Amino acid sequence: MTATASGRAADPLTATFAALADPTRRAILTRLSSGEATVNQLAEPFALTQQAVSKHIKVLERAGLVSRSRTAQARPCRLEPASFDAAADWIASHRQLWHERYNRLDEHLAALRAGEPSDPAGDAAT
Amino acid sequence: MTATASGRAADPLTATFAALADPTRRAILTRLSSGEATVNQLAEPFALTQQAVSKHIKVLERAGLVSRSRTAQARPCRLEPASFDAAADWIASHRQLWHERYNRLDEHLAALRAGEPSDPAGDAAT
Repeated sequence: MTATASGRAADPLTATFAALADPTRRAILTRLSSGEATVNQLAEPFALTQQAVSKHIKVLERAGLVSRSRTAQARPCRLEPASFDAAADWIASHRQLWHERYNRLDEHLAALRAGEPSDPAGDAAT
Repeated sequence: MTATASGRAADPLTATFAALADPTRRAILTRLSSGEATVNQLAEPFALTQQAVSKHIKVLERAGLVSRSRTAQARPCRLEPASFDAAADWIASHRQLWHERYNRLDEHLAALRAGEPSDPAGDAAT
């Protein structure tokens, strides 16, 4: 895969991580974890203008992390927790890979200590 | 907490998510999951210059996701999986909060169906 660092038309995982890379947006998501809220309600605790909060909400919406009601006049924002799944899975799989590697190293060291010469080249070939 | 959208002197969680918000950097981390690699080795599969890869590595280093050997001349890069923990924990806690909310709603609906009028205002006050 040839990947570029360009942020345009970001893939979903990039959009999710970019949306999470801001303390205000994470605080907005934390607030939405306890229930829907309007932009007004979200702006209050942050000493931010409604306009600034609206910008953050747009980033969260584009990443699919938040949706807004089309029917209610105040258009409350709602968390979309399923969209965290890809990001959570990506991180989990990388921790998993490392733990497997670490366990193999552990076994290798244990074998060395027990005086059984293991074959690290053979292990590495898997 | 008053937070700003400024990226300067980012908190660790912001630095981690920002580092992960790029497909090339994620691919570099995936490569490092299977073992240490030099910048040369990392540049090869991405059709990127060494300079471009070095830039990505610096972002990953600042976020603590990757470390580089100070002793070996080629200074191989190594994954630091423990630094994924804060990001993984943050996402996990937000999924957890939502699942709890969803389960409470489920119980409320079940109670309604069973003809036991529950008190949603009382639930919401917790």
